[in-house]
Amino acid sequence: MPWQAGWNRNVLHSPSSGRIICTGLGPGDPDLLSVRADRLIRNARHVAYFRKAGRTGEARRIVSGLLASDVVEHAMEYPVTTELPVDSLAYRNTLATFYDDWTNRLVELAQTQDVVVLCEGDPFFYGSFMHLHIRLQGRVAVEVVPGIPGMVGCWTATGLPITWGDDVLTVLTGTMSEAELVRHMRVADALVVMKTGRNLPKIRSALAAAGRLEAAWLVERGTMPGQQVSRLVDTQDAECPYFAIVLVHGHGRRPEATVEPCL
Amino acid sequence: MPWQAGWNRNVLHSPSSGRIICTGLGPGDPDLLSVRADRLIRNARHVAYFRKAGRTGEARRIVSGLLASDVVEHAMEYPVTTELPVDSLAYRNTLATFYDDWTNRLVELAQTQDVVVLCEGDPFFYGSFMHLHIRLQGRVAVEVVPGIPGMVGCWTATGLPITWGDDVLTVLTGTMSEAELVRHMRVADALVVMKTGRNLPKIRSALAAAGRLEAAWLVERGTMPGQQVSRLVDTQDAECPYFAIVLVHGHGRRPEATVEPCL
Repeated sequence: MPWQAGWNRNVLHSPSSGRIICTGLGPGDPDLLSVRADRLIRNARHVAYFRKAGRTGEARRIVSGLLASDVVEHAMEYPVTTELPVDSLAYRNTLATFYDDWTNRLVELAQTQDVVVLCEGDPFFYGSFMHLHIRLQGRVAVEVVPGIPGMVGCWTATGLPITWGDDVLTVLTGTMSEAELVRHMRVADALVVMKTGRNLPKIRSALAAAGRLEAAWLVERGTMPGQQVSRLVDTQDAECPYFAIVLVHGHGRRPEATVEPCL
Repeated sequence: MPWQAGWNRNVLHSPSSGRIICTGLGPGDPDLLSVRADRLIRNARHVAYFRKAGRTGEARRIVSGLLASDVVEHAMEYPVTTELPVDSLAYRNTLATFYDDWTNRLVELAQTQDVVVLCEGDPFFYGSFMHLHIRLQGRVAVEVVPGIPGMVGCWTATGLPITWGDDVLTVLTGTMSEAELVRHMRVADALVVMKTGRNLPKIRSALAAAGRLEAAWLVERGTMPGQQVSRLVDTQDAECPYFAIVLVHGHGRRPEATVEPCL
């Protein structure tokens, strides 16, 4: 039987009166927050956000003009783990403890009031919030407000449609092996590669092997101050930020013949 | 050389004083418009939108509470083409003429004022606007405001992340052949299938062949009144709307080991 759902399927099992409201912030320009996210953030008494220790954090920067003067901020600072290999059990355990601790703190806060968690892009699309989301299940009411994913801001910045007609779009992460990247790049029409940064030489090589390098774009800080839009072949590998995105536009399979009128 | 870009790469070649501003409307809930889109639509003197003849149109419905009382509306009604096969030259020509005519009318309007074109979801992601966009190049200033794609509203409605870790997401259209659907469904982690409607039996069959049917969801009218979220196996093929979306969530390749701290 189909069932009706609101913003989320989470069922409240605790007597707390507050909620955890995770709001997507969109690609970076505060003007691209949703009306709902903008209202929630302006009215928030408690906000929480992830950041690297010692940094302002991109999420906090996006809302800098919106927060009330008396808001209570909870900066969830990632533990410094540079001494641990990222695929080690010790690294995983350190991060798991970090997420467990913050889950407990947010649940405690939500006993009496709403807490707005800020998440760049869309919370359910490669978002860090999911590590809290899975731990919050059944403990407190959780609401998720979608946002414009970062990749949407990036393809808008190129001034060209990413997909039309029957184009297939595949979203990859630069952390994958080169062989896997090539395999996927060969069969998709439009491509988005997330998590670039130091993976850029591998992504570049995979695009060349798949015959897609000439058509690729690199977008850094899409919709934000300092936005850079370049053909990938015109860029160097050095200094590529982790959140830069590589794009290949689709070409519109069977253009116009497949257009069915909007309802 | 990298170059800076604003909202779009369009260069103004005409002396017109107005712009064509295409605003993404997001997945359907007016509260999920961007702050920028909301402001543009409330202040618009001219709005244009596609719709089927005789219908209100989804784009027009989304903004029904926002338009100024003295706004001038331009309903771009698709020509009735039920007597023509969608893959025929005659059908293509009819649509091309329709887009040509509306391009000319919008360019004429933009000589003296801004015109806001309404587009469900995100304009550059399978949007109808691109048929105008390509024709407007070089004739008038065009600005595109991104929106939350419909699929994002749909996966938010399921209450689960669509991708995490190194998941591969592939977006397909139900208009593709079953063999092509199966091929893509076998290699992606997370799946989105657009343009369902009467293609649902084929999509269902392809998911079964790819071993993904049990994990699939059907979301109708995501974020809108009458939203329905169902496991696909619990649904029937009849009466599936064209804009319903089929989803399969990713499972988070190498969870937590691959999480790199947000900047």
